[in-house]
Amino acid sequence: MSDGPVYERVALIGLGLIASSMFWAMKRGGVAGHVSGYARSEATRDTARRIGLCHTVCDSIAEAVADADLVVLAVPVGAMGAVAAEIAPHLKPGATVTDVGSVKRTVITEVGPHLPETVHFIAGHPLAGTEHSGPESGFSTLFDNRFTLLVPVEGTDPEAVARLRTFWERLGARVEEMDAEHHDLVLAVTSHTPHLIAYTMVGVADDLRRVTDSEVIKYSAAGFRDFTRIAASDPTMWRDVFLNNKEATLEILGRFTEELFALQRAIRTGDGDMLFDYFTRTRAIRRGILEAGQDIDAPDFGRAKVER
Amino acid sequence: MSDGPVYERVALIGLGLIASSMFWAMKRGGVAGHVSGYARSEATRDTARRIGLCHTVCDSIAEAVADADLVVLAVPVGAMGAVAAEIAPHLKPGATVTDVGSVKRTVITEVGPHLPETVHFIAGHPLAGTEHSGPESGFSTLFDNRFTLLVPVEGTDPEAVARLRTFWERLGARVEEMDAEHHDLVLAVTSHTPHLIAYTMVGVADDLRRVTDSEVIKYSAAGFRDFTRIAASDPTMWRDVFLNNKEATLEILGRFTEELFALQRAIRTGDGDMLFDYFTRTRAIRRGILEAGQDIDAPDFGRAKVER
Repeated sequence: MSDGPVYERVALIGLGLIASSMFWAMKRGGVAGHVSGYARSEATRDTARRIGLCHTVCDSIAEAVADADLVVLAVPVGAMGAVAAEIAPHLKPGATVTDVGSVKRTVITEVGPHLPETVHFIAGHPLAGTEHSGPESGFSTLFDNRFTLLVPVEGTDPEAVARLRTFWERLGARVEEMDAEHHDLVLAVTSHTPHLIAYTMVGVADDLRRVTDSEVIKYSAAGFRDFTRIAASDPTMWRDVFLNNKEATLEILGRFTEELFALQRAIRTGDGDMLFDYFTRTRAIRRGILEAGQDIDAPDFGRAKVER
Repeated sequence: MSDGPVYERVALIGLGLIASSMFWAMKRGGVAGHVSGYARSEATRDTARRIGLCHTVCDSIAEAVADADLVVLAVPVGAMGAVAAEIAPHLKPGATVTDVGSVKRTVITEVGPHLPETVHFIAGHPLAGTEHSGPESGFSTLFDNRFTLLVPVEGTDPEAVARLRTFWERLGARVEEMDAEHHDLVLAVTSHTPHLIAYTMVGVADDLRRVTDSEVIKYSAAGFRDFTRIAASDPTMWRDVFLNNKEATLEILGRFTEELFALQRAIRTGDGDMLFDYFTRTRAIRRGILEAGQDIDAPDFGRAKVER
């Protein structure tokens, strides 16, 4: 890989966790010559200017994208279509437009038709994040060794795809391609349904009469705590994910409920063997994740350095 | 608090994560004069001797408890009754027996009747752990700022309770008392149901035909990963928890399913306001947990130091 910029000029539309992490990662690796940024909220633009996020923070979206070779849509999935319509007249011919949304079928359907034929639209999704949001939450190492999935539609210029792939690799990511339907199903399993379940569990705990919120909080270290971290993610982003990945999420939720009822039945009937076998089987996937470098093996529940 | 030992001689029965962490924490704080240990498995005893876990590792349970002022039962909940029967004839009059099991009603029912009236039985539960198990997984800081719940039955000698409280405080823990029924309900919310749900989600992911295990593993960083950590906990321990806290777990699971169906309905009908409000509400509990010092605010999903 060359050391020079992959794109001379990059525009980030939306300046939250993902866009800000992209900026710091571009800066770290010299991946872009110049980065302009735009956010709808003036407060966000002010924060970005204060912390040095982007070379230029623009007050108009048209100005931000005007000369860009790469435009990154980093707004909630539900806002993608409107943003695409807004930027379309101002895009430079030959530019690439991509996005970082967690759902791909509806983004492709809603963004694609707005864009002129003179630009390359290649949907994308970096599988990385934290429970924090906003321009100040980004950091340069967020994408290191994480996967970014590209979802080009049929007929997309292979050179434009190759360049976007190089861009993400230079931000630290591993890149793979898949189609939109499969992406949405895979993410329903690895991200959307787990988030919904975490939100549900936290909601249940918050709503009990016989156990107080104060007890839930004090005694959370035994497992519940981890659910609250997931359930602290950005509400707008997640509302849009579920509204836009309805079918796959409902399919996986159906499987989840079925499985939960089987375990519930084992508890009710006292079927210890079934429970033991189930709990043993799920350990193998954990080992796979550690071997694939997608998590660390430090005893995280302790939230403390191991020392004797 | 005095700096001397709280108990002159302590016996640890079972040498897994909790018992080994107790040993290192006792050593750190000079909390016990002498600690003997026993594990049923010879391999575990050999490991304990090799890593210097306990002052003496005994080959018989009778020898381990013979002179102990405090005996800690640190075995799976399902084994507590049998172990109590085994040690009963060898206990020193005036000794305190406690346990660290995650369920309290059945432990009290099954352990209590075996013990002679000359000893104090005070059930206990340190709310601390990691996803690792075995004698090598322990560390001295595991209990720092975590809660230990003591569940004395009516008529227990207040001095014996006070001493056990001091013992746990010297290991770093904050100590509270509650009755067994309430303990089991609180833990069903903060620990047992979250674990069952995590196991279920991992089981579902492992069992899909259209998404491969390899995909689940590679793309796990977007939320699923955190479930696998919880679902990597010790299968024997968790089988026993569910078999012994049936009623409370099934009650909370019922509430969970009800709530999940409401969210599922909101997804199906496209009720974005309901989803947004729900996801906003659950953020408050997270803030409470951070304020109570029961988790850290570092962006854990990134699993990396923040650096720009």
